[in-house]
Amino acid sequence: MRQDYPATGAWRVGSPFGSRKFLDFQTDRPVALDSGKTLQQVTIAYESWGKLNADKSNAILLCHAWTGDSHAAGSAQESQPAPGWWDGLVGSGCAIDTDKYFVVCTNSLGGCQGSTGPASPHPIDGKPYGSRFPVITVRDMVRAQVRVSDMLGIEVWHSVIGGSMGGMQVLEWGITFPHRVRTLVPIATCLQATAQQIAWGAIGRRSIRLDPKWNGGDYYDAEVGQGPWQGLAIARMVAQVTFRSDNVFTDRFGRELADMDADYNGLGLWDKFEVENYLDHHGDKLIRRFDTNSYLIIGKAMDLHDVARGRGNLETAASRIAAPVLSVGISSDILYPTYQQKQIRDLINQTGGSCEYFEIDSPHGHDAFLINLDQVGRPVAEFLARYSL
Amino acid sequence: MRQDYPATGAWRVGSPFGSRKFLDFQTDRPVALDSGKTLQQVTIAYESWGKLNADKSNAILLCHAWTGDSHAAGSAQESQPAPGWWDGLVGSGCAIDTDKYFVVCTNSLGGCQGSTGPASPHPIDGKPYGSRFPVITVRDMVRAQVRVSDMLGIEVWHSVIGGSMGGMQVLEWGITFPHRVRTLVPIATCLQATAQQIAWGAIGRRSIRLDPKWNGGDYYDAEVGQGPWQGLAIARMVAQVTFRSDNVFTDRFGRELADMDADYNGLGLWDKFEVENYLDHHGDKLIRRFDTNSYLIIGKAMDLHDVARGRGNLETAASRIAAPVLSVGISSDILYPTYQQKQIRDLINQTGGSCEYFEIDSPHGHDAFLINLDQVGRPVAEFLARYSL
Repeated sequence: MRQDYPATGAWRVGSPFGSRKFLDFQTDRPVALDSGKTLQQVTIAYESWGKLNADKSNAILLCHAWTGDSHAAGSAQESQPAPGWWDGLVGSGCAIDTDKYFVVCTNSLGGCQGSTGPASPHPIDGKPYGSRFPVITVRDMVRAQVRVSDMLGIEVWHSVIGGSMGGMQVLEWGITFPHRVRTLVPIATCLQATAQQIAWGAIGRRSIRLDPKWNGGDYYDAEVGQGPWQGLAIARMVAQVTFRSDNVFTDRFGRELADMDADYNGLGLWDKFEVENYLDHHGDKLIRRFDTNSYLIIGKAMDLHDVARGRGNLETAASRIAAPVLSVGISSDILYPTYQQKQIRDLINQTGGSCEYFEIDSPHGHDAFLINLDQVGRPVAEFLARYSL
Repeated sequence: MRQDYPATGAWRVGSPFGSRKFLDFQTDRPVALDSGKTLQQVTIAYESWGKLNADKSNAILLCHAWTGDSHAAGSAQESQPAPGWWDGLVGSGCAIDTDKYFVVCTNSLGGCQGSTGPASPHPIDGKPYGSRFPVITVRDMVRAQVRVSDMLGIEVWHSVIGGSMGGMQVLEWGITFPHRVRTLVPIATCLQATAQQIAWGAIGRRSIRLDPKWNGGDYYDAEVGQGPWQGLAIARMVAQVTFRSDNVFTDRFGRELADMDADYNGLGLWDKFEVENYLDHHGDKLIRRFDTNSYLIIGKAMDLHDVARGRGNLETAASRIAAPVLSVGISSDILYPTYQQKQIRDLINQTGGSCEYFEIDSPHGHDAFLINLDQVGRPVAEFLARYSL
């Protein structure tokens, strides 16, 4: 059950990148960024489920991944083209029970589903930011979420929960605002992006830059279908391979050709294997709903993710975490291997905090946190239950 | 000691893609390809070391990887800009001992270091093949090597040895020409490319196609530095990440920035991390010495690699192997994981052949077969010694 809360937000339907229904909240003062720049008139879109209790102690913040948005739960109805990315895990009677908790999910700063991002109008001229949009960090995203928390009157979140980039936000919440979180659940994430993760990100960035239609980031005047979709699609292919696993690719696609009538029975340079068709399908889906500049800006934020930045070292950063933590890893994750989630556990425990580790046993790779909802839900529900309201 | 053998070959220096010294051999009849097409006037470049004995029983064929060439051994002298890719493993007194063996290495069909490839003149008009060059397979590459074998009078190779794509050729030698090989050493390779390997290949192909300067493959009229180097560099970045390992990237690069004076201390969208600098360096090196169309054509051949193609199934294919085999894997290889080299062992042993497995214990990933020469050399030397001349 969605609650139309609060008065300062208004229901909106639609963004330049597909129609979604969300609330939005406009900040009353500029948002200062890690880069030293500021963003004026920042809007943060969000959705909520359940009811906030009288002492405002039952609020849970969900943090989405790279191309996610505020639509975490709910079916593909009511102006929502797709079901929520955690629908079935979040809802009435679910692991994250909206009968009990007031659940909020914001669209990330820099995104393109209602929150201020590169496709948003620049306050000076009303034209899209494009190349003028500044680099942001995960910490900046969290600072924008703090504004929403303040507006909702939520001083302390009962839990902040998220996977992948969402998990980076979870960690930054615990470190930057330790007294505003009661528990934390970072999933399939890391304390700092590794060189290999940065390398994958860099390849995606270069692909987009190579697309002449990206035009340095200023392509919003382009006609429909004339944007930098080819570069974005390649960047997405890279991500999609790292999000999944060798085994599942072999089981699903093997060496099948996409079109058996292709030239020379597959021996043409551009004849496609089935796995290429699958990657094309995901690229196609993404370019219909996501802005290329948002993809760039958010991807860069992930590469810049480092909880130690400006804090001396990882130990000093981790020692700031006051809330108990459940760190969740995925056995087959090749992008954020389980040693990174165990490192989160070890570092927090070594610096006076409390962190336990749960491993999802799945063949699906990094994306398992969006696929194996049963395995995510059980430990999260048990962990939440231990810290009753 | 290099032997200037034989009369039909002539020493050449240089190719459009860097100066290398090699022998070349021109085939006297067309080469029929798996695609149904034929190539006329095919040239295969090669180098050799050591002396062929009287009964021609001491010849070893080395097969290079994707961007390798015939220069397997020797220092960076005598018109060779770089030392041989297995220098120190191949040579007088080395694991592959040129005092004992006559060692030959051919540049792959489709390559750009002396052998016929997309940059070679088309027999009809003398202009580069470009987009007219047909798709080739690993089996086609082996058929071209057979022509060199015939020319040299080598009926049976004492061993055929190679890593990665070279290992694919080794397997095809054993299956297509079982009576022309006495032993086989496939290293860090597979029986058939997996969906994940194809996916990486496809991403590289798309990056090249996205580069406007690729121009459908017809770019040889472009001025120096105006070719499709950006697309090739991105394709190489993908390969380079899969050739190495997470651990080594972290140890070498961590999260260091390439330029500490960069805008906003690394918070500019195009500010580079050290790992990006490293990938750029490898891209730069490649574009100076390698033809983009060769990269495409050879990469496609690797994606098409499947010893079962046209032979019913893997078992039927493997059962054709008559020679004893040493399958070598690398513990940290993420591109050709060790289960694939164990699969080679198991399948050969299950179908009546004889295969043993050796694992290189290295943190360097796939490239370890070009780095940890001691670990490659020892099992190879022991294996060769068991099958004395």
